[in-house]
Amino acid sequence: MDTIGSDDIEKMEKSYRTAMMNSISGYKPLNLLGTISSDGKPNLCIVSSVFHLGSNPPLLGMILRPPRPHNDSLKNIRSVNQYTLNNVTSETYRNAHQTSASYPSGVSEFEQCGFTAYHQEGFKPPFVKESTIKIGLEPVQITDIELNGTTLVIGKILLIIADKDITLPDGSIDHINAGTVAGSGLDSYFLPRLLDRLAYAKPDLQVSSILTNKS
Amino acid sequence: MDTIGSDDIEKMEKSYRTAMMNSISGYKPLNLLGTISSDGKPNLCIVSSVFHLGSNPPLLGMILRPPRPHNDSLKNIRSVNQYTLNNVTSETYRNAHQTSASYPSGVSEFEQCGFTAYHQEGFKPPFVKESTIKIGLEPVQITDIELNGTTLVIGKILLIIADKDITLPDGSIDHINAGTVAGSGLDSYFLPRLLDRLAYAKPDLQVSSILTNKS
Repeated sequence: MDTIGSDDIEKMEKSYRTAMMNSISGYKPLNLLGTISSDGKPNLCIVSSVFHLGSNPPLLGMILRPPRPHNDSLKNIRSVNQYTLNNVTSETYRNAHQTSASYPSGVSEFEQCGFTAYHQEGFKPPFVKESTIKIGLEPVQITDIELNGTTLVIGKILLIIADKDITLPDGSIDHINAGTVAGSGLDSYFLPRLLDRLAYAKPDLQVSSILTNKS
Repeated sequence: MDTIGSDDIEKMEKSYRTAMMNSISGYKPLNLLGTISSDGKPNLCIVSSVFHLGSNPPLLGMILRPPRPHNDSLKNIRSVNQYTLNNVTSETYRNAHQTSASYPSGVSEFEQCGFTAYHQEGFKPPFVKESTIKIGLEPVQITDIELNGTTLVIGKILLIIADKDITLPDGSIDHINAGTVAGSGLDSYFLPRLLDRLAYAKPDLQVSSILTNKS
């Protein structure tokens, strides 16, 4: 067993530390963040830091990196007050990865990376046509994290566009059927397979599966 | 294609909405949060809301649910100023799920759910022996999210304990080798397989694999 302490972490070569710290917490959800500027220029970038914050109201959190001049996403979210999150699938993960390249401000990653904008009436920023799950949100809290210059964006879900067969009878999203991929670190893409679904846990009950083909 | 709007979400039956909103964002990392009270009572609970916040300093964020009387985790983190995150594996996910049951305050989920406490000198809260990746953290910012009563805990990584063969030459953690599982919603467990690792993206470069057995 290897024990890595604070001093070891500080002494790590930068790219080595970045690779480790981006992958240490486990698998990450992958989404394409769609925004549009107030003068109508669309923007798309892959994000791996979306997390569930609440069901009622339906809230998702997301961390954005410290702003750089060519980063349009946060600027667009602030000015248009809407954004979209679209799942990354086994069909699109290579194109989705390419959206992480530093394209100049105003250049559309939709065109550059081979995605098609999908428009929904009443919603300004584009969704991703190729994504099987499309979420429309409005920011309800934007908080700077002073520790390292990142920004926490909390959004309320206004709209979900998905094929009917992707929603299971209990309301769960079926990510296997949706073709959703998972990520780790900065460059690794994974296709999960279902191990099990487990019944609501109670102190005096044995763990049990809720899948009909399992015990 | 099904379009679900704000009104539809509001009208959803509670457990249906909870299932959907907990799974809509994609796959989630799964970790066991280990804490200890100031009088030495250990606590363990599964968390699916850990996210990367920064590499230098090495920071992880985590969302904890609104405090309830029997929730010891946040209380323990505040009073002891240290906590651990331990990966959930294909060997332990059933036991890990059981830690979500509402055991009374002071009851140790280690004993109740079949986990072994692992102690490291200088670190008060227990790690999980059965986890192949163990992370020791100190909270550096604890922020209440007033929108819904949840709490954002930001921790600095002080310690990583893992088998040497789980770290790849570039610093990345090999979650396949570590046996780490991913989650979705409140009850679904997945074992991912690696699709690809892709080279750093640049505007004028084609997407390419960095795996030696891929093109």
